[in-house]
Amino acid sequence: MNFYWLEMVGTAAFAITAVLAVTPRGIDLFGVTVLAIITAIGGGTLRDLILGVPVFWSNDLDYIWVALGAGVIAFLTQHHFTWKILHKLVLYFDGLGAALFSVYAADKVWGLEFGLPLAPVILGIVTGIGGGLIRDMLSGRPTLLMTRELYAIPIMIGCVFYMLVMSYFPAYREPALLGCILFSFALRSAAITWNLEIPHWLTSEDKTIS
Amino acid sequence: MNFYWLEMVGTAAFAITAVLAVTPRGIDLFGVTVLAIITAIGGGTLRDLILGVPVFWSNDLDYIWVALGAGVIAFLTQHHFTWKILHKLVLYFDGLGAALFSVYAADKVWGLEFGLPLAPVILGIVTGIGGGLIRDMLSGRPTLLMTRELYAIPIMIGCVFYMLVMSYFPAYREPALLGCILFSFALRSAAITWNLEIPHWLTSEDKTIS
Amino acid sequence: MNFYWLEMVGTAAFAITAVLAVTPRGIDLFGVTVLAIITAIGGGTLRDLILGVPVFWSNDLDYIWVALGAGVIAFLTQHHFTWKILHKLVLYFDGLGAALFSVYAADKVWGLEFGLPLAPVILGIVTGIGGGLIRDMLSGRPTLLMTRELYAIPIMIGCVFYMLVMSYFPAYREPALLGCILFSFALRSAAITWNLEIPHWLTSEDKTIS
Repeated sequence: MNFYWLEMVGTAAFAITAVLAVTPRGIDLFGVTVLAIITAIGGGTLRDLILGVPVFWSNDLDYIWVALGAGVIAFLTQHHFTWKILHKLVLYFDGLGAALFSVYAADKVWGLEFGLPLAPVILGIVTGIGGGLIRDMLSGRPTLLMTRELYAIPIMIGCVFYMLVMSYFPAYREPALLGCILFSFALRSAAITWNLEIPHWLTSEDKTIS
Repeated sequence: MNFYWLEMVGTAAFAITAVLAVTPRGIDLFGVTVLAIITAIGGGTLRDLILGVPVFWSNDLDYIWVALGAGVIAFLTQHHFTWKILHKLVLYFDGLGAALFSVYAADKVWGLEFGLPLAPVILGIVTGIGGGLIRDMLSGRPTLLMTRELYAIPIMIGCVFYMLVMSYFPAYREPALLGCILFSFALRSAAITWNLEIPHWLTSEDKTIS
Repeated sequence: MNFYWLEMVGTAAFAITAVLAVTPRGIDLFGVTVLAIITAIGGGTLRDLILGVPVFWSNDLDYIWVALGAGVIAFLTQHHFTWKILHKLVLYFDGLGAALFSVYAADKVWGLEFGLPLAPVILGIVTGIGGGLIRDMLSGRPTLLMTRELYAIPIMIGCVFYMLVMSYFPAYREPALLGCILFSFALRSAAITWNLEIPHWLTSEDKTIS
């Protein structure tokens, strides 16, 4: 299955969310572009370093060109993103990208038989949220891990389901890929649409003054 | 020498200290588990990436299962850790884990003849504190490097002593391993027991308003 | 062309700027030394991990010894750096180091034919600013990317020019190296001398309360 165009849409969405996340803090075009590229390719780069394989973008620079272009365009037109429908649309495409890249990553790790059965889930999560975590540390924002946003859990569930299907029905790789991506994306979409959060009983009380 | 069970105890202690460190900031079970795993295996992963060897947990997922289990249990039972004796016990086991993993790392680097004589000490320190540093950056805490806690210095001393012994008496590898681990752990234990800190004259004055 | 001595001067300057950057926050000699070494070799280490080649310092520990020595000396003599001329001199040498290491890195990536034509520029920037970014995250300072300082842009311009010259006139490698290092350094020197900043129209407004 070839999701090339969806991958580029996801890459652009990652870059655009980076721009929307960091511009309120005051940043120049150079810094924005660097953070857009890191957000878009950081997670997959971390995964490939841990796997010990060549980083995925070294043989296909399209990922970086798209992130670069989307980042610059988003920075120059950022006032349009206050338009609510456009902003929500970016969130959905970002969720689609996260679902796609993370289940894809689980599949890549599975194919390499690396650290089965745990590593495909762990590196799927790393791929889906790693770039955003690095962006937040570099820009001084609280990272995703410290918020109650339902962003990483749909990614985890998609990867766990993919591993379960592949462990028991390895012949169904293509429908498993498609199904887990769609399921993960559906969960994330529900969280965006209804502003779902992680329930309080699964959360420790915040005792810091913020 | 096989320290398998001690390694698992150290891994669990690393994961539990991560839970105790981040829960006061308000965090959900997913985030806690991610940070527990990163704290437990982050330093050794960094070391292996720099060495250019396969990451240590790819062939033995026990490290991750133990960190995962310890993290979840510690999160669900965290109110017990206000019990002072239990909290101190975790600190000692954490110190034992740090001593064990760092001198072990120095030994691994020595065995690979990588960047002798400096790299075993540097990568020993990376192994001992790297996971905690990444955890603190991800959770927005001041890192160990910015506090006066005597945590990294016992690690450094253990690795330096191991390098000295191996350089002059390479036949005594096993007693050197054991001795340096115990010595490093003893220094850290003294720091925990008597709340020792880095002396002021080795510290620059803090001129920020915190 | 062999810039060995210049490289050591640049390494020392990186380490000294690290000390000057973090000591106002209150830090001990151990933490300062770790941050000095990370600042000096962090960027090149990241580059080599992404390239999948052995880290540059594993075969030449001089980089680490120089960073270690410069860091310790700068910490112990830091009150002298309030002397304005000395402080500015360190900034210029730091700029020279950044120009040298980044164009050198672009050349190394070019030689490996890795991700042409984009990766030499990206990894040149990573080499020039990566160590400082890690230092700032570890010490809780706002990173370079969030300031309007003209530090990374001269590095980027030097690497872009080097790629342009090598793409069209590959025979002129040596003069291209020298010319691009000098040009990048001249831009950074101008920024230091006249306190130049990134113009406001290329910067988003800061809407956070800091």
